[in-house]
Amino acid sequence: MLLPMSPLDSMFLLGESREHPMHVGGVQIFQPPEGADARDMRALLDAALTDTDQDVASRLGRRARRSWTSLGQWGWESDTRIDLGHHVRHDALPEPGEEAQLLALCSRLHSTPLDRSRPLWEIHLIEGLRDGRYATYTKIHHAVADGVSAMTMLRRALSEDPDERGMRAPWQHSRPRHPGPPVDAVEAVDLPRAVIHAARSTVGEFAGLVPALARTLTRAAREQGGPLSLAAPKTMFNVPISGSRQFAAQSWPLERLRLVAKLADATINDVVLAMSAGALRSYLLEQDALPAEPLVAMVPVSLRDEKQAATGERGGNDVGVLMCNLGTHLPEPADRLDTVRTCMREGKQAMAAMSGAQILAMSALGAGPAGASIVFGHNSRLRPPFNLIISNVPGPRHPLYWNGARLDGLYPLSIPVDGQGLNITCTSNDDAISFGITGCRRAVPQLHTLTTHLGDALRALEHAAGI
Amino acid sequence: MLLPMSPLDSMFLLGESREHPMHVGGVQIFQPPEGADARDMRALLDAALTDTDQDVASRLGRRARRSWTSLGQWGWESDTRIDLGHHVRHDALPEPGEEAQLLALCSRLHSTPLDRSRPLWEIHLIEGLRDGRYATYTKIHHAVADGVSAMTMLRRALSEDPDERGMRAPWQHSRPRHPGPPVDAVEAVDLPRAVIHAARSTVGEFAGLVPALARTLTRAAREQGGPLSLAAPKTMFNVPISGSRQFAAQSWPLERLRLVAKLADATINDVVLAMSAGALRSYLLEQDALPAEPLVAMVPVSLRDEKQAATGERGGNDVGVLMCNLGTHLPEPADRLDTVRTCMREGKQAMAAMSGAQILAMSALGAGPAGASIVFGHNSRLRPPFNLIISNVPGPRHPLYWNGARLDGLYPLSIPVDGQGLNITCTSNDDAISFGITGCRRAVPQLHTLTTHLGDALRALEHAAGI
Repeated sequence: MLLPMSPLDSMFLLGESREHPMHVGGVQIFQPPEGADARDMRALLDAALTDTDQDVASRLGRRARRSWTSLGQWGWESDTRIDLGHHVRHDALPEPGEEAQLLALCSRLHSTPLDRSRPLWEIHLIEGLRDGRYATYTKIHHAVADGVSAMTMLRRALSEDPDERGMRAPWQHSRPRHPGPPVDAVEAVDLPRAVIHAARSTVGEFAGLVPALARTLTRAAREQGGPLSLAAPKTMFNVPISGSRQFAAQSWPLERLRLVAKLADATINDVVLAMSAGALRSYLLEQDALPAEPLVAMVPVSLRDEKQAATGERGGNDVGVLMCNLGTHLPEPADRLDTVRTCMREGKQAMAAMSGAQILAMSALGAGPAGASIVFGHNSRLRPPFNLIISNVPGPRHPLYWNGARLDGLYPLSIPVDGQGLNITCTSNDDAISFGITGCRRAVPQLHTLTTHLGDALRALEHAAGI
Repeated sequence: MLLPMSPLDSMFLLGESREHPMHVGGVQIFQPPEGADARDMRALLDAALTDTDQDVASRLGRRARRSWTSLGQWGWESDTRIDLGHHVRHDALPEPGEEAQLLALCSRLHSTPLDRSRPLWEIHLIEGLRDGRYATYTKIHHAVADGVSAMTMLRRALSEDPDERGMRAPWQHSRPRHPGPPVDAVEAVDLPRAVIHAARSTVGEFAGLVPALARTLTRAAREQGGPLSLAAPKTMFNVPISGSRQFAAQSWPLERLRLVAKLADATINDVVLAMSAGALRSYLLEQDALPAEPLVAMVPVSLRDEKQAATGERGGNDVGVLMCNLGTHLPEPADRLDTVRTCMREGKQAMAAMSGAQILAMSALGAGPAGASIVFGHNSRLRPPFNLIISNVPGPRHPLYWNGARLDGLYPLSIPVDGQGLNITCTSNDDAISFGITGCRRAVPQLHTLTTHLGDALRALEHAAGI
């Protein structure tokens, strides 16, 4: 039986092509418990692979299909012949087995499309980290889950109890053990719940009418001005892209960002955006490619409320967007942070005042780069509506464990598309915040230098705040 | 500047899709010299990667492009910004690092498409074989090279001299050091050189007119009957395929096949086909799916003469085909060998009597599965024109070395397409013959059992010959 797929989710299948695979990814690094090592962790996962009771998590057990009988519409059907050997794969790092090799491997794994004839996910079990840790890379199609719902799935597979054993593998079905604490709702937005519900209830009515929605958004932007502006300068990132990806990642203590935010009367998300702004300015100066006008970031915000985020009740894609002026033309870090803070504040106020249909219009775009690409395409003669997407997907607030192995690192990989060759996604884990930078390998040369620039930008913000 | 691409070569780009990447592959296993190990081999390759004089082999330095100005025709242009980090990749095998892990990795590497915005090749440097050997997997688009020309490129990168050092990496430009002995022309065919030249000279005239050629072939088949028949039974292999591949490989001493051939007054290629016939029969019996009628194999034969094969002068795709009755309905190994031998003999006689245009018609198909798929498509209501392609790409006759490391194993990977879910390709190396079996992971379950069946089939043929 073919179950219906939401029009928004099916956009990620329709908009996909050879050079634009539409999946999100994540790297998880685990520290085995005292007395155990990476081999023990692999042995546990291998045992799950050969488990005769293969109760695959429901969202991972269905595949996308369309046919003449569904009038060409995409739908979901359950796959009764799941071939776990296809979905769960063993990988290893070449010498010297450091994070550089892990990132290089994940860059490549993230470049290849998922097999559409099967459920749209892969998990790679990665051994060979010289420091004795064990890594996994998970890839899931954006039609199946966005960053937040992928995080919810991860959250469910793990435990806050370091002593819990007998836990099932991440791809297996498990009941929610932990009603709380919930995954954070994105902190940047505090929309009245009624508005969120209104936006959702119009999905059935409007979604699919993407051009109309784009007009709504454009009109909204003209009326509101400033924070919703669609005028962004051309940059080297806003070009057609190739099919290969480069990925870089690094984390910083969340406390450092929290302190900067506190002293500047800003949010942590504002600091994330200001760090990105500083790093982009430095990178573009190095490449001799900094535009005179400030870069504009599209910032997705969750439309889920806390309860839903915790239970993963709705799943799928529930996001809106704000446009943020990054102030990359300003040399002073404090000025850039101030620009970002003002812009996000005004945007949130504007959003709170918008009708459900208007938020939905943004939601259709905010579905991420795919939406943007489908609506706007890439037209080299036009100015891009924004320069890149910077998103902050909240992760677990407390240390999490899988059969005693502590989740030590968590890096998100996202989706570059034509006209949007670079993407920055952050996620928090326990007391750290990780930046994952995913780019087209051709459009963004030397992408790994951005992590160095991010670190420099954080230090500059601390310095400006008198820390 | 856009250089023209032959219509035959461009068929492999036109016929390609997400589920049907059109590249051939090869696994090479090297035994490091006395006193050296796999790390030394990697160090040499790494040094070549950072070599400032990056003189990439000419065929690996161009990319395929088509545009409005070329009226949508594919052509070649040289890529002035080759990003070696994209084309040459480090991989490692998970524990225990045996051939099973190597084959699993190569199955996956072979499943993913090449990036069309770049030159159409990849080389994977694979460490972690527990026995201390070092492996490479090379992937090259069929529009750039067929099996024979890929073999010529490999041949050029290696040396017969175990003491030669200072050799350049396989992807770098090197002058032919060894005018002889040449790579074998396919032994199965001995066509008058004049016929080959006639066939080639008509390429410009006819190629591209594929439907017309298909008619020619069909007519030729009707007139000639027997060996060129297009009537094959339906089998489990002749179905639409998915995007993921399974690969298995094994080698046997060439001497064993040579002895069977000698005693049966057959060619080594006949023995290859009889082994395949025996293995297919056993596999299909196991799957309870053996058709009552014999399977038909399409057997590509080279149209290159020896001198051209040695110098790689023409490159590209120069192949014709014969259709071979595999006698899979016959329980006796000797009867199957006899069927194959008779069929190949008659086919060669028929081919020698054909006009250049007729051979060319077969050549357009014989370009491999891609050609067949494009011409015939997969229509589940029709009988397939043949059941699978079995090809024998001649490899080096003597041990070859790269900076002292001996080429110890050489396995070919080929291209399944819709309607042709299984492919068997053989290649020889020194005194061994290797079978590479490439299949759709879904259409050919338990594909690895075919290697066991091949070994059984060889023993059965020896037994029948009184060995």
